[in-house]
Amino acid sequence: MNLILLFPEDFVAPDRVLLTGRRLRHVLEVHRAVLGQSLCVGEAGGRIGIGRVLRLDEEGLELAVAFEREPPPPLPVTLVLALPRPKVLKRVLLAVTSLGVKQIVLLNSFRVEKSFWKSPALVGEALREPLILGLEQARDTVLPDVLLKPLFKPFVEDELPALSAGSTRLVAHPLTERPCPREVSGPVTLVVGPEGGFIPYEIEKLQEAGFLPCALGERILRVETAVTTLLARLF
Amino acid sequence: MNLILLFPEDFVAPDRVLLTGRRLRHVLEVHRAVLGQSLCVGEAGGRIGIGRVLRLDEEGLELAVAFEREPPPPLPVTLVLALPRPKVLKRVLLAVTSLGVKQIVLLNSFRVEKSFWKSPALVGEALREPLILGLEQARDTVLPDVLLKPLFKPFVEDELPALSAGSTRLVAHPLTERPCPREVSGPVTLVVGPEGGFIPYEIEKLQEAGFLPCALGERILRVETAVTTLLARLF
Repeated sequence: MNLILLFPEDFVAPDRVLLTGRRLRHVLEVHRAVLGQSLCVGEAGGRIGIGRVLRLDEEGLELAVAFEREPPPPLPVTLVLALPRPKVLKRVLLAVTSLGVKQIVLLNSFRVEKSFWKSPALVGEALREPLILGLEQARDTVLPDVLLKPLFKPFVEDELPALSAGSTRLVAHPLTERPCPREVSGPVTLVVGPEGGFIPYEIEKLQEAGFLPCALGERILRVETAVTTLLARLF
Repeated sequence: MNLILLFPEDFVAPDRVLLTGRRLRHVLEVHRAVLGQSLCVGEAGGRIGIGRVLRLDEEGLELAVAFEREPPPPLPVTLVLALPRPKVLKRVLLAVTSLGVKQIVLLNSFRVEKSFWKSPALVGEALREPLILGLEQARDTVLPDVLLKPLFKPFVEDELPALSAGSTRLVAHPLTERPCPREVSGPVTLVVGPEGGFIPYEIEKLQEAGFLPCALGERILRVETAVTTLLARLF
């Protein structure tokens, strides 16, 4: 936790917050903060600043906060990801949030197991948790939007063209020779398939929607390694 | 498992292997292979080819194997990594092996917890496992070398200069302005610190050994995300 992310309900006064639960435990046990110490804080969706420890015990952490600078710039990318298994999903969401992705679409595909769509990891606080951890890791404050699209064809035919308008459209596909471009200027919409890859029909549909298949070489990477590698090349 | 990695003890004849244990289970339960099916195989340290299923039951998997092509080229990098906590270590080893790293040095640093050096993850089969999984993931056959260096100063002063001779020497250090270079030509020795970073003394020592601090921007990344991002930029 390199930044403590603060939400409206944490504020007990305009310049004071009271924290309990996970963030209190982390500051007690990992930071081992002391009275008067300054910690990095950020207002969810807003600016970054300093929180001075006014009180810290088993009951709560009270900080006097002041905000001074903007969060780091986002990556200009929309990431469309075939829904991974829940454990991988959490790691990928944390990693891409820490890298500055603000727009994430979780998409169905032939090789996505049906049961993944019923995972509790897709609902409410469980879905938000890796996003918050990613922001706290990277010292960012702006939560990504996550859209769930459990129907491949209507999304790719009817929604994806407008969603990706004006951007460089790429689909990562190990079975192509074209290498993933480097240092692209302007926004990108990047589609990444499931373990095992998209089936030919899906690649065709994405190509019809204007997406160019590109690859990272002959090595087959895990989704989390592939997504990080793609983002690092593109930006 | 995109490739079944074969070791000398698996061979029952020059062109036949018999597998049990983890690889048998995986082929039974994930690949759900059938008699006559061809699976991708590779000889540890050698070539890649095809294994045709001669027998598959709860007792064993027998394959007729033929090898035909070289494994993918390695990344020309020596990765010197401050020893991460055991769970992270496994993920990082798997990821960097899948990316083609062949030379890994696990190094001590002030912010590495002493207990990490006593982890069973550093010994024998437990250390080899994520390397094998990384090769199987990426369809590679050449196991990386992993060196353990539990003493920072003697390693950096006495061994690192020779180990990194002739290579571009970089140390990832979030507190510098210089961005990590892209598409470096020739070999690189890349040093990556622990969560929390190297202390100033350690950075000084690395600079004395010829290492240039460089960073990935203002975002602080988890070790596994940082290492993948650095490798993707460099190569």
